[in-house]
Amino acid sequence: MGGYHEGHLQLMRTARAECDRVVVSLFVNPTQFGAGEDFARYPRDLKRDAQLAEQVGVDLLFVPAVEEMYPRAGTMVHVPLVTTHWEGAARPGHFEGVATIVCKLFNIVGPDVAYFGLKDLQQCRVITRMVEDLDMRLSISLQPTVRESDGLAMSSRNAYLTEEERELAPMVFQQLTLSKQMLKSAKMGGDQVEEVLRHSRSTLEDSGFRVDYFELIDLETTQPLRSVGMECALVVAAKLGKTRLIDNVLL
Amino acid sequence: MGGYHEGHLQLMRTARAECDRVVVSLFVNPTQFGAGEDFARYPRDLKRDAQLAEQVGVDLLFVPAVEEMYPRAGTMVHVPLVTTHWEGAARPGHFEGVATIVCKLFNIVGPDVAYFGLKDLQQCRVITRMVEDLDMRLSISLQPTVRESDGLAMSSRNAYLTEEERELAPMVFQQLTLSKQMLKSAKMGGDQVEEVLRHSRSTLEDSGFRVDYFELIDLETTQPLRSVGMECALVVAAKLGKTRLIDNVLL
Repeated sequence: MGGYHEGHLQLMRTARAECDRVVVSLFVNPTQFGAGEDFARYPRDLKRDAQLAEQVGVDLLFVPAVEEMYPRAGTMVHVPLVTTHWEGAARPGHFEGVATIVCKLFNIVGPDVAYFGLKDLQQCRVITRMVEDLDMRLSISLQPTVRESDGLAMSSRNAYLTEEERELAPMVFQQLTLSKQMLKSAKMGGDQVEEVLRHSRSTLEDSGFRVDYFELIDLETTQPLRSVGMECALVVAAKLGKTRLIDNVLL
Repeated sequence: MGGYHEGHLQLMRTARAECDRVVVSLFVNPTQFGAGEDFARYPRDLKRDAQLAEQVGVDLLFVPAVEEMYPRAGTMVHVPLVTTHWEGAARPGHFEGVATIVCKLFNIVGPDVAYFGLKDLQQCRVITRMVEDLDMRLSISLQPTVRESDGLAMSSRNAYLTEEERELAPMVFQQLTLSKQMLKSAKMGGDQVEEVLRHSRSTLEDSGFRVDYFELIDLETTQPLRSVGMECALVVAAKLGKTRLIDNVLL
């Protein structure tokens, strides 16, 4: 997308260390924004982003124009099932936009490996699912979420936060961590799991967040779980003022 | 698909003459058939098809199992606009199935050039459109429709025709040719074009066909035209007994 932060730079560094040639895209993709979302105000600073990418040793920064990527209403890639909940439900059409632009970028760049950050956990699943389903010939490398020292997940959208909101924001990760500890400490049944989630939700709500979801999900299917499984994660989306924060922890 | 006939073999011969290595798919693709369509009875004869492909000098015949191509309900590719009319309207979901399997085959095989027959004119447009929209790195080579000596377009589905129906079937191409001659002989306005099309429709209906459509369309958009343009075609779908025949001529 753009507005590179340490999360993006860490992806670039990992790619730089592991690959012969590194291509990075810089493109605020209109098809993954819904009406009334922050497409217009999303951080854009070509000069700054280009400098950051260069410092990391990126070989090629791909900065297409919107009209170049979308000369007209075009073919869309629909990934089913893993897109029905969470971000897919909150942002209709979002994952079609993500899958389509990622498919296009893969075809244009032809990477052997593509790097994505686990901060956008459901997005990662949508992309790995698309790659499997459409038999795309590349591997997807998923990298850990990079956090500020107080735990807030790095995100271009953190720039929207007021000073007060920025102070509150780390609570999202704190509640994820707390819930994770509680869920891992005991083999819990459905009611107890729901009680843990409800507690985190209301703690956030009481502090001024509007919680969209705070759930335990299966990593493979992204469907909600009622007990801790082999491969699962806690996922959260919560609004603070005008800014929607998302985060997750793997269990 | 399968049930190779001279149309398929001609595509293979052209590919053989133009390319170093030729891969042919043999796969009756379930996702492009609707409920109540002829998926179950579609011609399947692996031994015969494999012999035919070998005789032409094909290097590799790709014969995947359905469960291999579709282990579960998966990602679908939706091509808009050029899929709204004609076969797209008559067969809901058909072109999503076509686009998806072709996308998968392209990713698996990685061809430099892919050959398709113009018999399925709208399908050709759906595929070229998908390739453009998703920035796929290959060229599409569209090859002329191969016909029986009496003009009937070759099709695996011709095998469904009874002897009587087979005698009637060439009328489809005859009416296409007749309409084409009339449309090309004079610069016609909308009413006159419609009159020519109506005449062909009723001639076919009077002979026992049930005409689904008989239209003048724009090649780029596949939308109906009311006057002869630069790049256009006559397209027809008509049912004879249980068999649905489609055909077209370029103007």
